[in-house]
Amino acid sequence: MTNNSSVTPANGQSPNEPKPWPKIEPLPQDFDPDSLKGNIENYIGMTQVPTGIMGPLAIGGKYANGNFMIPMATTEGALVASYNRGAKACTLSGGVQVVCMEEKVQRCPLYRFQSLKEALEFVAFIESQTPVLKQKVSEVSRFAKLLEIIPTVEGNQVTLSFEYFTGDAAGQNMVTISTQHLSEWITANAPVSPVFWYIENNMSGDKKAVSNAFFRTRGKRVSAEITVPREIVAKILKSTPEALERYYENATLSAIQSGAIGINGHYANGLAAIFMACGQDVACVAEAAIGINRFEVTPQKVGGDLYFSVTLPNLIVGTVGGGTRLFTQAQCLEMIGCNGTGTANKFAEICAAAVLAGELSIIAALAEGHFTQAHKILGRR
Amino acid sequence: MTNNSSVTPANGQSPNEPKPWPKIEPLPQDFDPDSLKGNIENYIGMTQVPTGIMGPLAIGGKYANGNFMIPMATTEGALVASYNRGAKACTLSGGVQVVCMEEKVQRCPLYRFQSLKEALEFVAFIESQTPVLKQKVSEVSRFAKLLEIIPTVEGNQVTLSFEYFTGDAAGQNMVTISTQHLSEWITANAPVSPVFWYIENNMSGDKKAVSNAFFRTRGKRVSAEITVPREIVAKILKSTPEALERYYENATLSAIQSGAIGINGHYANGLAAIFMACGQDVACVAEAAIGINRFEVTPQKVGGDLYFSVTLPNLIVGTVGGGTRLFTQAQCLEMIGCNGTGTANKFAEICAAAVLAGELSIIAALAEGHFTQAHKILGRR
Amino acid sequence: MTNNSSVTPANGQSPNEPKPWPKIEPLPQDFDPDSLKGNIENYIGMTQVPTGIMGPLAIGGKYANGNFMIPMATTEGALVASYNRGAKACTLSGGVQVVCMEEKVQRCPLYRFQSLKEALEFVAFIESQTPVLKQKVSEVSRFAKLLEIIPTVEGNQVTLSFEYFTGDAAGQNMVTISTQHLSEWITANAPVSPVFWYIENNMSGDKKAVSNAFFRTRGKRVSAEITVPREIVAKILKSTPEALERYYENATLSAIQSGAIGINGHYANGLAAIFMACGQDVACVAEAAIGINRFEVTPQKVGGDLYFSVTLPNLIVGTVGGGTRLFTQAQCLEMIGCNGTGTANKFAEICAAAVLAGELSIIAALAEGHFTQAHKILGRR
Amino acid sequence: MTNNSSVTPANGQSPNEPKPWPKIEPLPQDFDPDSLKGNIENYIGMTQVPTGIMGPLAIGGKYANGNFMIPMATTEGALVASYNRGAKACTLSGGVQVVCMEEKVQRCPLYRFQSLKEALEFVAFIESQTPVLKQKVSEVSRFAKLLEIIPTVEGNQVTLSFEYFTGDAAGQNMVTISTQHLSEWITANAPVSPVFWYIENNMSGDKKAVSNAFFRTRGKRVSAEITVPREIVAKILKSTPEALERYYENATLSAIQSGAIGINGHYANGLAAIFMACGQDVACVAEAAIGINRFEVTPQKVGGDLYFSVTLPNLIVGTVGGGTRLFTQAQCLEMIGCNGTGTANKFAEICAAAVLAGELSIIAALAEGHFTQAHKILGRR
Repeated sequence: MTNNSSVTPANGQSPNEPKPWPKIEPLPQDFDPDSLKGNIENYIGMTQVPTGIMGPLAIGGKYANGNFMIPMATTEGALVASYNRGAKACTLSGGVQVVCMEEKVQRCPLYRFQSLKEALEFVAFIESQTPVLKQKVSEVSRFAKLLEIIPTVEGNQVTLSFEYFTGDAAGQNMVTISTQHLSEWITANAPVSPVFWYIENNMSGDKKAVSNAFFRTRGKRVSAEITVPREIVAKILKSTPEALERYYENATLSAIQSGAIGINGHYANGLAAIFMACGQDVACVAEAAIGINRFEVTPQKVGGDLYFSVTLPNLIVGTVGGGTRLFTQAQCLEMIGCNGTGTANKFAEICAAAVLAGELSIIAALAEGHFTQAHKILGRR
Repeated sequence: MTNNSSVTPANGQSPNEPKPWPKIEPLPQDFDPDSLKGNIENYIGMTQVPTGIMGPLAIGGKYANGNFMIPMATTEGALVASYNRGAKACTLSGGVQVVCMEEKVQRCPLYRFQSLKEALEFVAFIESQTPVLKQKVSEVSRFAKLLEIIPTVEGNQVTLSFEYFTGDAAGQNMVTISTQHLSEWITANAPVSPVFWYIENNMSGDKKAVSNAFFRTRGKRVSAEITVPREIVAKILKSTPEALERYYENATLSAIQSGAIGINGHYANGLAAIFMACGQDVACVAEAAIGINRFEVTPQKVGGDLYFSVTLPNLIVGTVGGGTRLFTQAQCLEMIGCNGTGTANKFAEICAAAVLAGELSIIAALAEGHFTQAHKILGRR
Repeated sequence: MTNNSSVTPANGQSPNEPKPWPKIEPLPQDFDPDSLKGNIENYIGMTQVPTGIMGPLAIGGKYANGNFMIPMATTEGALVASYNRGAKACTLSGGVQVVCMEEKVQRCPLYRFQSLKEALEFVAFIESQTPVLKQKVSEVSRFAKLLEIIPTVEGNQVTLSFEYFTGDAAGQNMVTISTQHLSEWITANAPVSPVFWYIENNMSGDKKAVSNAFFRTRGKRVSAEITVPREIVAKILKSTPEALERYYENATLSAIQSGAIGINGHYANGLAAIFMACGQDVACVAEAAIGINRFEVTPQKVGGDLYFSVTLPNLIVGTVGGGTRLFTQAQCLEMIGCNGTGTANKFAEICAAAVLAGELSIIAALAEGHFTQAHKILGRR
Repeated sequence: MTNNSSVTPANGQSPNEPKPWPKIEPLPQDFDPDSLKGNIENYIGMTQVPTGIMGPLAIGGKYANGNFMIPMATTEGALVASYNRGAKACTLSGGVQVVCMEEKVQRCPLYRFQSLKEALEFVAFIESQTPVLKQKVSEVSRFAKLLEIIPTVEGNQVTLSFEYFTGDAAGQNMVTISTQHLSEWITANAPVSPVFWYIENNMSGDKKAVSNAFFRTRGKRVSAEITVPREIVAKILKSTPEALERYYENATLSAIQSGAIGINGHYANGLAAIFMACGQDVACVAEAAIGINRFEVTPQKVGGDLYFSVTLPNLIVGTVGGGTRLFTQAQCLEMIGCNGTGTANKFAEICAAAVLAGELSIIAALAEGHFTQAHKILGRR
């Protein structure tokens, strides 16, 4: 893992006096659907998703610093209100500390050989040629950087996990194109020829929640923490640090028994809403909505404040390419200062901080029995 | 599991002459944001998601029958084209056979006691009172029906999984409100009093991909199948049944090694796109995008046709409530005849059939090495 | 789940004055290897596994009551000493409360059909014939009782999970023979004929750790608990309730990140040792060594005592048949009063209680940094 | 992964003329239980486990070469016969090709800090000091070699996975002692002091089946393969390559739905039996009995031979220390030429090859409907 040790604190702007809310400009009258080429086929119109804003959320990150008003697109009542409540608690507490710690994206081709022996010869070749392969990536991609190749041998076949740095792009296409190029060279030059090979053998975890995400970053790996003073827990979350900790200890055991990957309350809610608003590949929620929550009363077990951290190892996001350039999506990215190059890690940190805020709110509601009431007043039937 | 044995075949309309595409009407000038109350808070505008149409997809289901033009909202190029290709292959083959086999939604409260002994007394009480509880649900909900209560004892605490039928609503709020009502009666009347209890202890799998979904339906459980003649596999998918089968055998082994739940190619892509267009809770993609694919060359191992099935045990969908009533979303549901009561199972079948089409297309591309090319021409960087 | 609500407390015999230890009589001189027919083939001699005894462990269970000296066969130093320490803490605390709550064993045949439609007709037939099938089991088995049949449909095939009660036998063969008999009748009488079928399609979890064990009992499902006064935690475990709780909270998060099933410290150690000594199928450790641990300081978060529970949903054990009749194994079962019919649930409760004792000891050592020291003095390199 | 590319073929000795079987000498009359110090406490006698022999199994490995008669200790009838049948099929086919590809054992201490910021400073320190730490291991261990340290940051805490090479010892104690030594130096010298730390935070997967074993070797990672001519499949396994492949494709889907880790038939059976006979830590079956099976008809899909491979990523074994020095266990290791230093990888290869043989046999029985019959004649009730 790379070393990211500098984290600066947030500015504590009062949540009671937010700056005027940003607005999303609607599509202009002369909007030309042809401009959507590259994003959609068989175009029939625009799906309109109501978008709200939550915040200000104070964030002190390695890349994201300041108070953020974060757009969330959803059709589910109570969602933005819940995240907003969590944001208020966070900002009053001095803000969320967050670090985007590592970033990688994989492409995992499989190569079949005649025998285990050949498969191992191939692996030896790959290991010796890794410096050459790292250099060859630049022949097809300006931004992708090959970090390492991890081989998995299974009988007479090998899956090579090509691990790339992809910068501001979510990177799934970049890594495909790069790996295709490398694989063509490899198969032409290796001492053994594969009987067949596939560009991706479903080991990368693309669009799926996978358990090995905890040991292998895919997208951005981000951790966020906060200490919420007990009076803020009382005033804003209507709970106590002890109640949240106790609730979550039990929730953890239940998640384990349901066969979940990691433990979280509802990362998917916040991620889907932010992803939709900000032009991400929303299907990536399936793989990104995993991680680990931890609640602790601190420093003493009773009467202390609430320490809470979230860690997301599989945040696939991008601030260039794909939907990020589209009309309303670019506006939303602009609202959080993530419109363009050099902002992907910042965006990842904002997502993680927002997820933290949302977890605080929902866990407090579940711990205190408010969950049902909120859903009677707002929300889906 | 309930008995659903009548499946009628699809009408084989030629995909070369689709009816004129439907269009999504944009929001009217006089659109009043106050009408969004119940769906959003802190409204700042609409996120505009480009929406395309794929099809016609011929479906022969228990609830869905006919040729469907299916809206998909996405910012990811190549997606609709890929699903459309799969739909073409399906329709030319006579259509997808699909059955929504079972439907349930859970709410899983936890009750803590002084001892294992008390926990077991409580379970005995619940078992004796289940008929009473089933009847009491109607006191708070017109639609929810309590099917059973499954207890899990762990030391001095019990989680009760209340399993409900929720009709056309996705049901998450309905089951919360019903379970709250039942729990209040239970805790007031049981021979032992809980030390504390929570309305949901994170065992329901809400918004998370969970392994036990395969043994316990959450939402709709749907299975879909098709036999694609080899000439269609060749002509439309540019592949062979043998190539797809071989690819997927290896993809399965890799998915297993990555610690995935179930095995699929990219259910999340199709589900996210349809969910967005049709006013579903998009965060539910996190739990819904799991299942099992199976490819087989049939009837003989070589030279036969392609049998393919997908099974999704955790499709949380609804056709009333939530975002389904919103302007563009209702239009999209209307396009597939799923706007309103009595259509949730039909909608689930359409989702599963679309997912099947999308899997065919992507697996063929991966099996034949077209994946990279498609992403060079269309799509994100 | 069945209702097991009567748990009686243990007799608190002082652990400082154990009854004289039992001994294992060696094989007699005239031992005839032919008597091993049915247990081994290609016999070459006896593997001699050193066996120690731990206890007395005071147990208050539904089936097991009293102070038990429990035999453990192992070659790993420090193991028996560690369990013995845990047993001492338990007995001084008044003993382990434990209940064998449910028992079932599955056999899961798969039936392939021509289509999803046929598969669903087959399921309908099974549902209508379940009473007949329940009665037919007695034609081939004196002890097996069919409780229910759970179908899982996946495209054109169905897996039926036949769930049996098997009494004192571990039951894997009994359920195979019964299911074979029922399947022969089913395939001869169903309105649709399977294209092929298999007696077991690997869904039963036989000899594998599986996540769905938490929702589906296999073997015996047992939960055990104890409250250890803090002075006993200090005196015997050299720790504090707060230290154990804190250690285990973190250990839980780590287990989750490693992709474990359930969370435990080292159930496998105790189960393997007791299984070996007592003639169980030792390979079953692979599936049995899963469960949930929970440590809590109680009643108040600081300064209280230690509540600890273990729950094992997949304890496959038997007290008749297999190795239980063999010479030293029968002696060991006799030591704990589990030699013969009517004692399988008692044996399961003893295993769970022993596991609890072993967890207390190892978690205390890890929490307090004693783990390394113990392994320097005793044990493997 | 290391490069192990030289695999030599086995000698094809006819299985119809095995050398005379080895025998296990019983304990001498003057056996002194005090010699068991270090392996057992509270000694009460020896558990006698019937031991049979299977083979000859022809193995062509990187470390194991020749025909092996492999001891298996079990009380379960049909087991040795089943493995023996598999061995016969393997040997007649020219033997199992196997390679022990990688070896590592982990110890995973956790360090808690005041903040995420401090945790990241600590990681930076570790990364800079890794060369120093690698050298310091030799201060406490002759054999352990630190390969790398992998940090996992989660909020204000870090788990460091110390990955060691441990040679012929199973290594669990060696890595504990080494890591304790390194951690003491680290905590004394790091720029930030942990609030607390634990020598093992349950992330190593010790004694548990864990999903991340596929991406992280623990113990030995071994892959084995064989091509069995169809006439041998017919003659010895009473089946066809097509039947085995078809069975296993379906078995795979079922294993996935049960929430298994990897896919195997019954690795635990063979591993438990060999581990018991050969003085391994039998509890390690819980973590070792995972892996991936793959059956394919080859080279053509119909009428070809059977390719079969098994891959086990988590084989924790040792040929020095622990139970390997005990009387009958040393004899059994001697039978397979694995008694002593320099033989651990050889032993791992023999285990994997035996597991392969056992899988062939059981899968053939299940595929062909022989499973029930075998268990009627032999075996447990």
